[in-house]
Amino acid sequence: MASSSSLTLSQAILSRTSIPRHGSFAQKLHPSSTSPSISVPSFSGLKFAVSRRRLATAATRLSVRASADVETLEKTTDTELFEKSVNTIRFLAIDAVEKANSGHPGLPMGCAPMGHVLYDEVMRYNPKNPYWFNRDRFVLSAGHGCMLQYALLHLAGYDAVKEEDLKSFRQWGSKTPGHPENFETPGVEVTTGPLGQGIANAVGLALAESNLAARYNKPDIEIVDHYTYVILGDGCQMEGISNEACSLAGHWGLGKLIAFYDDNHISIDGDTEIAFTETVESRFEALGWHVIWVKNGNTGYDEIRAAIKEAKAVKDKPTLIKVTTTIGFGSPNKANSYSVHGSALGAKEVDATRQNLGWPYEPFHVPEDVKNHWSRHVAEGAAFEGEWNAKFADYEKKYPEEAAELKSIITGEFPAGWEKALPTYTPESPADATRNLSQQNLNALAKVLPGLLGGSADLASSNMTLLKTFGDYQKSTPEQRNVRFGVREHGMGAICNGVALHSPGLIPYCATFFVFTDYMRAAMRISALSESGVIYVMTHDSIGLGEDGPTHQPIEHLASFRAMPNILMLRPADGNETAGAYKVAVLNRKRPSVLALSRQKLTQLPGTSIEGVEKGGYIISDNSSSGSNNPDVILIGTGSELEIAAKAADELRKEGKAVRVVSLVSWELFDEQSNEYKESVLPSSVTARVSIEAGSTFGWGKIVGGEGKSIGIDRFGASAPAGKIYNELGITVESVIAAAKEFF
Amino acid sequence: MASSSSLTLSQAILSRTSIPRHGSFAQKLHPSSTSPSISVPSFSGLKFAVSRRRLATAATRLSVRASADVETLEKTTDTELFEKSVNTIRFLAIDAVEKANSGHPGLPMGCAPMGHVLYDEVMRYNPKNPYWFNRDRFVLSAGHGCMLQYALLHLAGYDAVKEEDLKSFRQWGSKTPGHPENFETPGVEVTTGPLGQGIANAVGLALAESNLAARYNKPDIEIVDHYTYVILGDGCQMEGISNEACSLAGHWGLGKLIAFYDDNHISIDGDTEIAFTETVESRFEALGWHVIWVKNGNTGYDEIRAAIKEAKAVKDKPTLIKVTTTIGFGSPNKANSYSVHGSALGAKEVDATRQNLGWPYEPFHVPEDVKNHWSRHVAEGAAFEGEWNAKFADYEKKYPEEAAELKSIITGEFPAGWEKALPTYTPESPADATRNLSQQNLNALAKVLPGLLGGSADLASSNMTLLKTFGDYQKSTPEQRNVRFGVREHGMGAICNGVALHSPGLIPYCATFFVFTDYMRAAMRISALSESGVIYVMTHDSIGLGEDGPTHQPIEHLASFRAMPNILMLRPADGNETAGAYKVAVLNRKRPSVLALSRQKLTQLPGTSIEGVEKGGYIISDNSSSGSNNPDVILIGTGSELEIAAKAADELRKEGKAVRVVSLVSWELFDEQSNEYKESVLPSSVTARVSIEAGSTFGWGKIVGGEGKSIGIDRFGASAPAGKIYNELGITVESVIAAAKEFF
Repeated sequence: MASSSSLTLSQAILSRTSIPRHGSFAQKLHPSSTSPSISVPSFSGLKFAVSRRRLATAATRLSVRASADVETLEKTTDTELFEKSVNTIRFLAIDAVEKANSGHPGLPMGCAPMGHVLYDEVMRYNPKNPYWFNRDRFVLSAGHGCMLQYALLHLAGYDAVKEEDLKSFRQWGSKTPGHPENFETPGVEVTTGPLGQGIANAVGLALAESNLAARYNKPDIEIVDHYTYVILGDGCQMEGISNEACSLAGHWGLGKLIAFYDDNHISIDGDTEIAFTETVESRFEALGWHVIWVKNGNTGYDEIRAAIKEAKAVKDKPTLIKVTTTIGFGSPNKANSYSVHGSALGAKEVDATRQNLGWPYEPFHVPEDVKNHWSRHVAEGAAFEGEWNAKFADYEKKYPEEAAELKSIITGEFPAGWEKALPTYTPESPADATRNLSQQNLNALAKVLPGLLGGSADLASSNMTLLKTFGDYQKSTPEQRNVRFGVREHGMGAICNGVALHSPGLIPYCATFFVFTDYMRAAMRISALSESGVIYVMTHDSIGLGEDGPTHQPIEHLASFRAMPNILMLRPADGNETAGAYKVAVLNRKRPSVLALSRQKLTQLPGTSIEGVEKGGYIISDNSSSGSNNPDVILIGTGSELEIAAKAADELRKEGKAVRVVSLVSWELFDEQSNEYKESVLPSSVTARVSIEAGSTFGWGKIVGGEGKSIGIDRFGASAPAGKIYNELGITVESVIAAAKEFF
Repeated sequence: MASSSSLTLSQAILSRTSIPRHGSFAQKLHPSSTSPSISVPSFSGLKFAVSRRRLATAATRLSVRASADVETLEKTTDTELFEKSVNTIRFLAIDAVEKANSGHPGLPMGCAPMGHVLYDEVMRYNPKNPYWFNRDRFVLSAGHGCMLQYALLHLAGYDAVKEEDLKSFRQWGSKTPGHPENFETPGVEVTTGPLGQGIANAVGLALAESNLAARYNKPDIEIVDHYTYVILGDGCQMEGISNEACSLAGHWGLGKLIAFYDDNHISIDGDTEIAFTETVESRFEALGWHVIWVKNGNTGYDEIRAAIKEAKAVKDKPTLIKVTTTIGFGSPNKANSYSVHGSALGAKEVDATRQNLGWPYEPFHVPEDVKNHWSRHVAEGAAFEGEWNAKFADYEKKYPEEAAELKSIITGEFPAGWEKALPTYTPESPADATRNLSQQNLNALAKVLPGLLGGSADLASSNMTLLKTFGDYQKSTPEQRNVRFGVREHGMGAICNGVALHSPGLIPYCATFFVFTDYMRAAMRISALSESGVIYVMTHDSIGLGEDGPTHQPIEHLASFRAMPNILMLRPADGNETAGAYKVAVLNRKRPSVLALSRQKLTQLPGTSIEGVEKGGYIISDNSSSGSNNPDVILIGTGSELEIAAKAADELRKEGKAVRVVSLVSWELFDEQSNEYKESVLPSSVTARVSIEAGSTFGWGKIVGGEGKSIGIDRFGASAPAGKIYNELGITVESVIAAAKEFF
């Protein structure tokens, strides 16, 4: 990690002050660092807490900005310098796209003014610690315009985006990929690009803020207090996910969510007139938002400032600031056309734009006065964080219990022994549906994990996701932890991504029927890609749901997630396995987990265990001679079908066969085990293998091998009582026995 | 097919009239039939065309209804009988759910009045030919309330829903599954249940009507002229897909789309207040809809009638009729609560409801006067169809060319030799991206297939989907065939399902980047389930798209569709394979096709063919001794990686190896071939197999076998130029050669 020699200016200043003792907690933390490998937020304040005197000095310097949010807007920069700075952003974007010969210059050129106002005048952040807890969050929902954000991060002094990073835009291994990726670029909060995801992430970030603020702020100390800003475009507006998330934002009254709608009237297919003629403002008003229209987003700097001021004054509603801009502003021949949206301008047009905007500089040049102007953010940011750290120290003295909880949420360090809260079961425990067992786990965990919160897409009583000791997270009760998402699966998933990425100790879970992961798959893929440890509680995981029929019965879903990178697909078979699945899910904070859970009751099986689940696949029973690792047949099952495999084994054993039963609860975890372990479970010498799972057999070929047999369902389901469907489709003990006997 | 003994009343009446000659076309058609196996719409009019005299009689009988739409609303039923009939619907639903002990009684009880007005007073349909082309379409978007529709179909005289069918609600093999399924129940237009899909399907149905009307109606003959009615609930309203589709419906000004919003304030989690407080009416006005509010949907029959009348009068906008109802109306203890939403009432509450609504009858009883009242629909329907058939005969005389086209759309019989339009290529043809080759196919096919229409989700110029000889389908140009969906993938897919299910000869295609199938997967699954032959044109199908990075690069997508039932996943490698993919896609009218197409240029390979694609997998080259079927190694590729396999083969052959190269362009089609054929391509004796595909290796285990090797990508991609990513991730000729050499 960072050595002292890498201390940044703010750290250098601050670290000269005396560091109060914070015990072992502080020692665990690492300094805000320039190391690109950092990915767990640091809690640097505790290490670099500043003396009151120093803070006072910083506060004086920043008096206009640090005292009250609204006042920050009064401070405007000299207009000439402002425009120069805005043009710097434009040309950094133009130059980077030109060098890469790939990218989207149009949005940065149009949105540079609002971006500038945000990063230079409005937002509170610490460039040298991108993970400072109480920072304002910014999300570029129109992620293709990422050069806007990279240019802003560069100017603001973030170490991830230096000049060489801008020059390696969209190149292998760079910190400046083609769309914003939180896992590549410290300073980027979430991963965007797929349209509509970002605005929904932002709703999640704002939800997290409002929940934590309601839980931890005290009349005398406001310890959680930041805004979430978004820029979204026409494309985001057209996507259904954004309507879902914004409907919830309005319902929840997320007053500290401020979204800039880049109204440029151009999308890839040309003028938005061809497909998008709705009245966005009226729609947002209908969704419960406050709406402001900045008619001149190109040069109406004061309009932008005034709009933000107004937005902040409206505390009970999120605000949409529609900012009418010209895409590719400044390009004499390409502005206001789709040709500037997603391609380099070309040398000739770059020259023309330089001429047009009066820009005499070399590519990637940041004029000295602009550089000087932005340079204050490093010190300012350090002061912001320092002030907050001092506040936290005070908070910790006065409210040690709350401070400990909040720290756990900020750092992702869970209370020692949390996993002891997981319920355990014996074969004598009553048979139960894994969805019910899941609820036991959720409720047990909610008591020991302050960051656990979540809910269902209007299926709480089916998904069994209610936390019984908490009320509903609502506008009037934002401190509660049951989130009611309504029938909005896609928005739900993306909101949970925002919650997860707000703070490492927040553990969002969300729920619907497993088949409806199809509605939210794009958000789930971003969970996997962006390392958001969301827990997806997916019940009604097979034909076992019965009468609702094929529209509701997942078939290909297990396979479809097993094929997805960096996501855990878990299908527990009973109580112990459900507890194991939750243990795994909680521990995997950088990898989402999908729990496939049954609607129907399942027997508590002998041999299942939490430890087994942690290995992904393990033997639950084997009557072959001990140590031989050579059964006559291996029966492999998951979830509700493990019981079928176990029953078939009982029958076959009665006939004198040596039968091993393996639970393959998570293929990904099993795959990560040592070859020795895998060989101990599925010895390559034993080719007599039968798998059974009430889903597609796709992918099982690799597990059962060329000789093996897979019992599954390679068609759609049907509407009938569950037992009937199991029988008709041959997901039965008899099928397993018959398949096994083919080997004897 | 149906024998003459199964002729229904209307057919019996009509078939007594003389049948005009229609040549071979008419002979191909089968009569409107009661056979449950029917699934291609019949064109019975041509067979059962009626004399003008008979028609006149029918018209007189139906004077009020058949003359002008608006007038139909003047005709009201005696209120007492109306209420009795409405209660019949309620109790059929109650009784069926009770018998099944599963289902959703609440919606049918609340929506019975609007359902009654629609099916009894407003809609034009022929119960004995559910596939009559010009019927009004009805979609129950809130599909869980399917007993409403089954009760209405039963009363209206549809053969699919007889009393015994109601009694086998939600049972194995019944015509009355747990959600409406068009492929099970003639009379059901589309498959609903997953919320929001139905309203989007309805937009597709209305789009189809408006397009066909614009193309085929003449000043003197309005041959296409029907309405599309929908009932959607709070759940549908919350789903993003409905906002997407309704935004387009407003943009397109689909005046003949009339949606009833069952505003009952209850969803599964309880009062919608907990998650849904937006102002739906204002949102729809913002989307360009006409909005009407029926405040008393429970007993305000005249209000409902007046609203429909008003809706029909508004011709340039779709109409949302918000109908405030009480869920479970009539149940004294459960009405207006979530408990009546999705469970049987229970014997006690059923009794109480019988008492409350004054219903003395046995379960499933339809009172005689109600039966009598509804019985007229069989004759009326026959007359509607007869009248239209006569009109069509007239149309055919006056406009033979248009009539032939329209017939092709109505029947799904394509012009002979259409496939000759498919372009062919030689190895000398210029290298090109399959997305460009796809556009050549689309444009060639559009000339010979009048039902081909579609577009892209704001990526037309990237997906290469524009039909060059047509303009945009827009409000002012509804006759055109390029549909501009905007950035609304999910809505796009579901709209295409509606178009496909409107008429067998309509072939909708839609396009986006392959990775964004994640946004529309729920609609694509319904394509597969509901046998909608949509063509999904999915470009940018791998890391080969380069700089846009991992958010845009599909990895697991091929596997995820290969695992899905009843959908064809095709990944063509060059021009001939792209043409083959289109041939397959066009021919598969009951199975959707997904075409994965490259952004990057690909060489035209020797050995590829349309015929090969039709078999799913085939040998493109093999230098082993002819007839031996025993190469040293088999290299298997798809799409852009087939070229890599071919190059690796060239190198290995130089070293004296016998190498076979297999294109596995569609696993599903290959799987359907005979064992002999499969063995001729992938002989089981040859275990030396190497597969290469720029995607997840998940599923390849079965193809390459236990000894084989799969080269693929089991991680997320990266942002960089495409060639760099291919090299870094080892998707190279060298990797294939190295893997093959391990066998030697």
